[in-house]
Amino acid sequence: MVFPLGISLYYQERSAVIGFLLSMGILGLTGLFLSNIPSSSPRLKAREAILIVTIGWVVVSFFAALPFVLSGSAFLVDAFFEAVSGLTTTGASVLRDVEGLPKGVLFWRSLLHWLGGMGILVLTLAILPILGVVGFQVFKAESPGPSPDKFTPRIAATSKILYTIYGVLTAAILLGVRAAGVPWFESFVLAFGTVSTGGFGLYSDSLARWSANSPLIVLLAAAMFLAGVNFSLYYDLAKGRWRQALGNAELRWYVAIMALSVLTVALNLYGPVYGSIGEALKQAWFQVGSVMTTTGYSTVDFDLWPSFSKGILFTLMFVGASAGSTSGSVKVVRLLVAAKVVKRELSRVLHPRAAKPVVIGGRVMPPEVVQGVVGFLLLYAAVFALGFLVISLEGLDLLSSMGAVAATLGNVGVGLGAVGPRGSFASFSSPGKLFLSFLMLLGRLELFTMLAALSPRFWRE
Amino acid sequence: MVFPLGISLYYQERSAVIGFLLSMGILGLTGLFLSNIPSSSPRLKAREAILIVTIGWVVVSFFAALPFVLSGSAFLVDAFFEAVSGLTTTGASVLRDVEGLPKGVLFWRSLLHWLGGMGILVLTLAILPILGVVGFQVFKAESPGPSPDKFTPRIAATSKILYTIYGVLTAAILLGVRAAGVPWFESFVLAFGTVSTGGFGLYSDSLARWSANSPLIVLLAAAMFLAGVNFSLYYDLAKGRWRQALGNAELRWYVAIMALSVLTVALNLYGPVYGSIGEALKQAWFQVGSVMTTTGYSTVDFDLWPSFSKGILFTLMFVGASAGSTSGSVKVVRLLVAAKVVKRELSRVLHPRAAKPVVIGGRVMPPEVVQGVVGFLLLYAAVFALGFLVISLEGLDLLSSMGAVAATLGNVGVGLGAVGPRGSFASFSSPGKLFLSFLMLLGRLELFTMLAALSPRFWRE
Repeated sequence: MVFPLGISLYYQERSAVIGFLLSMGILGLTGLFLSNIPSSSPRLKAREAILIVTIGWVVVSFFAALPFVLSGSAFLVDAFFEAVSGLTTTGASVLRDVEGLPKGVLFWRSLLHWLGGMGILVLTLAILPILGVVGFQVFKAESPGPSPDKFTPRIAATSKILYTIYGVLTAAILLGVRAAGVPWFESFVLAFGTVSTGGFGLYSDSLARWSANSPLIVLLAAAMFLAGVNFSLYYDLAKGRWRQALGNAELRWYVAIMALSVLTVALNLYGPVYGSIGEALKQAWFQVGSVMTTTGYSTVDFDLWPSFSKGILFTLMFVGASAGSTSGSVKVVRLLVAAKVVKRELSRVLHPRAAKPVVIGGRVMPPEVVQGVVGFLLLYAAVFALGFLVISLEGLDLLSSMGAVAATLGNVGVGLGAVGPRGSFASFSSPGKLFLSFLMLLGRLELFTMLAALSPRFWRE
Repeated sequence: MVFPLGISLYYQERSAVIGFLLSMGILGLTGLFLSNIPSSSPRLKAREAILIVTIGWVVVSFFAALPFVLSGSAFLVDAFFEAVSGLTTTGASVLRDVEGLPKGVLFWRSLLHWLGGMGILVLTLAILPILGVVGFQVFKAESPGPSPDKFTPRIAATSKILYTIYGVLTAAILLGVRAAGVPWFESFVLAFGTVSTGGFGLYSDSLARWSANSPLIVLLAAAMFLAGVNFSLYYDLAKGRWRQALGNAELRWYVAIMALSVLTVALNLYGPVYGSIGEALKQAWFQVGSVMTTTGYSTVDFDLWPSFSKGILFTLMFVGASAGSTSGSVKVVRLLVAAKVVKRELSRVLHPRAAKPVVIGGRVMPPEVVQGVVGFLLLYAAVFALGFLVISLEGLDLLSSMGAVAATLGNVGVGLGAVGPRGSFASFSSPGKLFLSFLMLLGRLELFTMLAALSPRFWRE
């Protein structure tokens, strides 16, 4: 909180300065109290790790909400929603007057994206595979199995590499955005929001004011694309393993799905919405990239686009980018496994006794990895359907209700209709906001971790 | 066509009489021609059976469309759509002036439901399991494996039992509807539309005019429920195996899901829509039952109901009733298998090395059955998503587009918005109508059969 405090001091934002100082005091006292509790077991088992991850994200969200409350920027539930939305890199907002908030608070909001994005990388590439939540490093030979003993050293080593890549990418985006003519303060906000695939900005109409700045739009579209790539591939690239990195099956499909979506949306927009094919391609790339990488920025109100383009964007909310990136939602690799599973069943109609394994990128997938991926997909559909029913109690139209659930569960941050680019999550009731916060955390922790911790069996045994 | 011809003669409908006579002539000549082709192979293999089933449904739909065209009731694409909608027991209509059509043509339309429903029973309980499309008779010990040799005798035996049950149920509904005060002609139409879970009626506002006839509404709701039960359970009942039939796991979940949906919808409607809880329960049961069994009748315009009730109805379009019934969509048993698969993965977070089988109704599911079910669910989601994107090209709002695809792929016949209870499929373009006809056939043939026949590999080998 030192950085946003400094910004609030510089801009002489009195309420925000008090808010940050109070928050730092509360956090300091809590830390002092906790550090006096003697730690009994330095070695973690999977069960404890699941609890730490789950409770950790909830508690950190709670503390991250303090500056919003203590600076008078938001009430309790709104502040919690905003903090969860920040840390899970969702980017959905319930704040009604974003433009009127202190700069320190806005910086804090975006810094949460950046910190959360880093936490997600460590979580998905270092912690979750060890916890048995499979389907992340399925393409990496060095993928660790469930071995609680090696817990701490492996996380430390992997994390250090990830921090470095993440930091370099952030710095590159920051300088690029600044060079494209964006003021320093907003450049930080956009760099944080992009590299983490978060989506918080400074204005309630997102990036509408930059819509005509083509270099910036293209730069951000490219940056969002890069943030949606599996970060372990950057490690491969840094080690000179070009062929391995660029030949990655998920990367190829990620590029293919995005390119196909951009082209079809651009063709759909060219004529009825944009007079030039260049402009259509630019806006299509930015919006497709923003939704597919689950960032959630918008340059235009795509809720006004033709049904086909909106349909593609809505569908991409359930696709997401690559596993091991900062993006949310389902992720391309899981859909790739699903496609192979379906293909196997189709061929079994003709050859009922053939028992072929699922092969991806030349590698045979172990059956338990395939089952894990399939289980995730079915669970994602079930959580979406139940979440949709719960949120429909709010009385919004069904498409907005679906959009709200898809945008939070998938950590996208923007939906359609009432929660579209010109909409807001502010109109939901407090229980509704808490439920959507729960969905953001659930999606971010890849469903299984959190639901396992919530299951009665977890506590019975 | 003798029966609708008789009706058209009785009501002196000149154009319809000519239409039926011409159709009968064309069919007679075609049959005469085909019967002169010497049949070369009396024994069928799975490959030929798949082709026969796929081509058979398309060709029969084509011939079934003749009376619509030749009586001047509908043009080519519309007539084909209506015939497919009838035979697949979908019940979606593109006819603009239903009330003005000849009674013979209306009878023909509903008779297609009845014939199609019977065909579906034979298809799903006798033919598809032999073709390796698993997941139908998973609860029946006598489930036949893929054995082309026993093809003909087993189908004949199973079919005979099914015809008898189907006939008895139809007669019971017919007499019940007549007793509830409906004229004979409409009683036939409603009996055909109910027992087949089809949904064609005599009026463009479906059953709105009978909305106040409580005995009829309750009777039809009960009849739709019965039509959504696995027909092999009736065989068990007839054989005195009460415990086996009533203890069936899918039946219990089918009842549980329907009861829970009816109660929540009724509570949601009580107050804002209906003043009495009895009326709310009645309308909720009818509408939930109509959508869940994929019949598609409506007594009221549920598009005007609160979001929560509409959300439940929309979700139920992806549930369906029991396998081995005349209903369409996904079917409860598959969701039951999916729930067990998800549960297994959740418990694997805590016990990574535990490899538990999927158990349903006390029976261990073979892995290939589970894989077949999972493959079906993933394929269903993929076809829905792609179908939604294709139909969104028509320019309808997204919810109507989703509704149109869910209503045709799931053979429900009614969606939301533009294709809701007061809407119509008439506004789609001709390619759109053909695509929706394709989806109806695809859903009816349980995806795999038709897609296998359409795969390049099928023809290459």
